[in-house]
Amino acid sequence: MKQYQYLLQLFLSHLENYTSNLKTKLPVELYEPENYILNLGGKRLRPLLALVAADLLDKDPTIALNSALSVELFHNFSLIHDDILDAAPLRRNQPTVHTKWNTNIGILSGDVMLVKAFQVLENYEADDYKQLNKLFSKTAIEVCEGQQLDMNFETDNLVTVSNYLDMITKKTAVLLGCSLQMGAINAKADIDTQYNIYEFGKHLGLAFQLLDDLLDAFANDKDKFGKQIGGDIIANKKTFLLLKALELANEQQKQEFKNLVFEKNTSKKIEATLKLFNTLNVKQLCEIEADLHTQIAITCLDKINASALKKTNLKQFAFELLNRTI
Amino acid sequence: MKQYQYLLQLFLSHLENYTSNLKTKLPVELYEPENYILNLGGKRLRPLLALVAADLLDKDPTIALNSALSVELFHNFSLIHDDILDAAPLRRNQPTVHTKWNTNIGILSGDVMLVKAFQVLENYEADDYKQLNKLFSKTAIEVCEGQQLDMNFETDNLVTVSNYLDMITKKTAVLLGCSLQMGAINAKADIDTQYNIYEFGKHLGLAFQLLDDLLDAFANDKDKFGKQIGGDIIANKKTFLLLKALELANEQQKQEFKNLVFEKNTSKKIEATLKLFNTLNVKQLCEIEADLHTQIAITCLDKINASALKKTNLKQFAFELLNRTI
Repeated sequence: MKQYQYLLQLFLSHLENYTSNLKTKLPVELYEPENYILNLGGKRLRPLLALVAADLLDKDPTIALNSALSVELFHNFSLIHDDILDAAPLRRNQPTVHTKWNTNIGILSGDVMLVKAFQVLENYEADDYKQLNKLFSKTAIEVCEGQQLDMNFETDNLVTVSNYLDMITKKTAVLLGCSLQMGAINAKADIDTQYNIYEFGKHLGLAFQLLDDLLDAFANDKDKFGKQIGGDIIANKKTFLLLKALELANEQQKQEFKNLVFEKNTSKKIEATLKLFNTLNVKQLCEIEADLHTQIAITCLDKINASALKKTNLKQFAFELLNRTI
Repeated sequence: MKQYQYLLQLFLSHLENYTSNLKTKLPVELYEPENYILNLGGKRLRPLLALVAADLLDKDPTIALNSALSVELFHNFSLIHDDILDAAPLRRNQPTVHTKWNTNIGILSGDVMLVKAFQVLENYEADDYKQLNKLFSKTAIEVCEGQQLDMNFETDNLVTVSNYLDMITKKTAVLLGCSLQMGAINAKADIDTQYNIYEFGKHLGLAFQLLDDLLDAFANDKDKFGKQIGGDIIANKKTFLLLKALELANEQQKQEFKNLVFEKNTSKKIEATLKLFNTLNVKQLCEIEADLHTQIAITCLDKINASALKKTNLKQFAFELLNRTI
């Protein structure tokens, strides 16, 4: 991410300026949680991508600062509400909003953040404002749909790999595409460029999520990955790996998977599941799927009319993002 | 409301057209609740006001149909989330969304409706779209703030009449002003007209809420009012009546109010509270406050450059709205 440190700093200053105004706003129950979650940190990948897009298209990246803020507000709204839906106690090792305050405050402060994600775009002139809002509304609805599909998958026993790819497209990938396209709109890019940069972000997001599934099962360094290894397996989560394995499994293997759902010994459960995954070769199939989306992303990026150096930088950034230790 | 039956029918057809498309949308968990709550009925006062404004300003009211839909979507989003916050089992004598489905579905389907409230404005051209969205975002945030203030009042013992008026302005009144102003924006009205029609709606909303407080305590015909008489008193709700009474009470009367908070016998509680209200003359003071806002509303309406007949019709409509049986 080295080449984008400057853009990240730009965004962080803008965010700091925004959150400092939250401290005096009333009622505090609505604005303290917003300030709290926006200061929990994180990679700031989504807002960064809006600035990266403007920079790629040779425009002053500051033109995309409010688009970046909009996306970050939306992302954090979705974290507050999703943490309620998932009854999650922690977010980035800190109490979630509904745990630190309560569910009602989580719902309502999230609602306000969702509206503010639209509101911070108001300093753009009307045509850009409308383009940004249209894209943003479409994306916001897809993200909500993705979250609902993800919840449905918990109890749906007929989920396919294709359903799964549709779900992660909506829940994760489209917001990356949206961030980049918003930056491109700010840069007054033509429709083709907007399309290509959106698709670049979407497929990058898909590759990222698929590799995240892989890391959850196969990472050999918990600290680098930052999450509990095998968490998805323990939770019987219907990831690409599991769904692909079920697709390829013979009757006996299917039965083994069914039995493993109820296995209480977690080390045994992880070990047996990984053995089945290895037998069915799904790690490699997941890598192939992730590579496919990486390739599509790169192809879309290549089509964009921008400086070769800047495109190379963005590719390098994408590979750094994807190339976490497996 | 007779003179507005035609406008109401226009809106109901538009709504029917919108909701019929919801029936095939996936995932059903997000769109069935939306269809359900939009079909629970209600006066449709807010969307009607958007059409009324366009009609008042001598424009084809159909230009305001999507503004009307936007406001109705927002209103129903807020009902879904507020019913979760208030743990309300019923809405218009039917199960609330979180009761019929569950809280998670209530949160997420509400979120989608909030985004759609912005999205249905997309068929307006960019300048109008931006004006509508700006007004709408500002109003949406105020409504959320009003809801939070209302919840805070439950445990805050220092609430004043002025705090209360601020709360009902945000929670109830501004959305009526917003509906009318959106219709005026669609009618390409100048800023002064927009301001006056907004203030008309806001003060009408205040008068309406104050009279609603009054009806809750003093209505002599439960069926006409449609709610349990004395519900606010039983719930120790800090209404204009109670707050004004506490402001005027002597030490002994204040003590009586304090004791009544814990009175378990509801008939006794209502009777004793009404006796104190009568002694302190707060019914009349509430009527005076409501009259004041009605007068301001009418003054704002009078300033608008529109046909005398249409203004008279709107005044008559406003009085019908306010003149429910006490």
